[in-house]
Amino acid sequence: MSAHLAQAPGCLVAIGGAEDKTSARAVLRHVLKLTGVLDPTVAVLATASQIPELVLPMYHEAFRGLGVQRVHTLDVRTRHAANAPAAVAQVEAADVIFMTGGDQLRLTYVLGGTTLLDAIRRRHAAGAVIAGTSAGAAAMSRTMIYDGDAAASMHKGNVKMTSGLGFVRGVVIDSHFVQCGRFTRLMEVGAANPERLGLGLGEDTAVVVHPDRVLEAVGTGHVIVVDSWSIDHSNVAEIAQGDAITVSNVTVHALTAGLGFDMETRRVLPPDMLLARTAPLFALPEPAVLEAGAWRM
Amino acid sequence: MSAHLAQAPGCLVAIGGAEDKTSARAVLRHVLKLTGVLDPTVAVLATASQIPELVLPMYHEAFRGLGVQRVHTLDVRTRHAANAPAAVAQVEAADVIFMTGGDQLRLTYVLGGTTLLDAIRRRHAAGAVIAGTSAGAAAMSRTMIYDGDAAASMHKGNVKMTSGLGFVRGVVIDSHFVQCGRFTRLMEVGAANPERLGLGLGEDTAVVVHPDRVLEAVGTGHVIVVDSWSIDHSNVAEIAQGDAITVSNVTVHALTAGLGFDMETRRVLPPDMLLARTAPLFALPEPAVLEAGAWRM
Repeated sequence: MSAHLAQAPGCLVAIGGAEDKTSARAVLRHVLKLTGVLDPTVAVLATASQIPELVLPMYHEAFRGLGVQRVHTLDVRTRHAANAPAAVAQVEAADVIFMTGGDQLRLTYVLGGTTLLDAIRRRHAAGAVIAGTSAGAAAMSRTMIYDGDAAASMHKGNVKMTSGLGFVRGVVIDSHFVQCGRFTRLMEVGAANPERLGLGLGEDTAVVVHPDRVLEAVGTGHVIVVDSWSIDHSNVAEIAQGDAITVSNVTVHALTAGLGFDMETRRVLPPDMLLARTAPLFALPEPAVLEAGAWRM
Repeated sequence: MSAHLAQAPGCLVAIGGAEDKTSARAVLRHVLKLTGVLDPTVAVLATASQIPELVLPMYHEAFRGLGVQRVHTLDVRTRHAANAPAAVAQVEAADVIFMTGGDQLRLTYVLGGTTLLDAIRRRHAAGAVIAGTSAGAAAMSRTMIYDGDAAASMHKGNVKMTSGLGFVRGVVIDSHFVQCGRFTRLMEVGAANPERLGLGLGEDTAVVVHPDRVLEAVGTGHVIVVDSWSIDHSNVAEIAQGDAITVSNVTVHALTAGLGFDMETRRVLPPDMLLARTAPLFALPEPAVLEAGAWRM
């Protein structure tokens, strides 16, 4: 654990699911790099999963393979466990808190109002990186999608939303986005509140939310930005539940690794502008563990 | 057969597949209405299908149930059959030429350069309605999509395109669009040529292309318009086959029945403006067959 970034909150890394855990692991590598710590400690939280006994060893192996010395696996399945001092201590010692996939509703139900969630928030505020994949990514926003058939979306009420963990404001995050054809889910969300920026994450792909609200795409696939600020008409407030939603003038961007997006100006950032905005982080020395890890496996 | 609209080409009706054939049949009703003919003759062409013996009776029944007296089913499976005078004569007598689903490549391969396709074009120019569902819709454009995994799209070369039947210029049509999550297919097409307007048709949903290039949404689902004219950057011309495509500033509209789109100005038309632009057609008397059909079943 380091105090490099103690004055600024840490980055968030929302991953679209199915990230590479055994070969190049570009996304997981990037998560470690964003800590700015040479020898980071990682806490893996499998609360979302129904099979933590399978998921936790997988991530333990993946991070160890990248040279991480301390990987703490937290098998927190109940609200009782999420108030236990041992788990809290492991999060407090972590430079990365990684939330696995599963069901985002389990994540919010188990963690909401617990000392473990408080500890995660404190670590984030103190500069730790919060990363999550699939359900772990969806749960990061203040309002999150927890269900909704993509094929039936754009019919009022199809997308089911509730309160998320609130690590980032102003966005709604969807995962497995390209693979499951979920564009309509974020269009439905954007029609209901055009202020919300929809972030659709492809698999093995992540969006980094930097502290100054610059987004950065990482990984092999696409980060789809569904920006509804530009819409000029929707019938969403006039129709009944189940009726088809119309919307005109949604703006969509498809980003890949190296491209960024400024959440304040709502503009795509080409690589040079992204680097200029994120340079302080990248100027830090490359963590030694990555060099070791690169040759280890 | 009537000469009502002999001076103007007929409407095109591109249907997203799985249109209702047994109950309200809003889309098929609309196809008949667009003929402006009180007692229209319908020719159904099942060339795209590998099971015309099942598909043709289904449409025969559907149109008969709507009160159509003359439904000609054309089982044209070969180029030889597509040059046979009997089939040509049936098309020449038709107010509606309806192309079923199946494989759009079979449709273009069998019909391309035949006297039957010539006859369809002549009838269209003389005012007949050309309708097609699924593959029959996809084949209507000058360049058509015939394959491409939606989950792998936005990677250069994934969407497979070739020459379509060319009934409408300037668009690329995709069907089963919402149900199969095909947004990325039309984004890939639009990045390669921003002049092309992408029309993504939901199931049981159609877009009518009126002769003055006004589009009209019909049916129970969504017509998704993917307009890439607005894009300001894509890497598509710089990357290798298989590489991930970036694109910024795509404009998307989700239309439902009653909304229109002006292909020249690229603007959504609210119901009153759509009616003003399509009024000459709607002012024609409602075909008597629809009234009869409504009560028959």
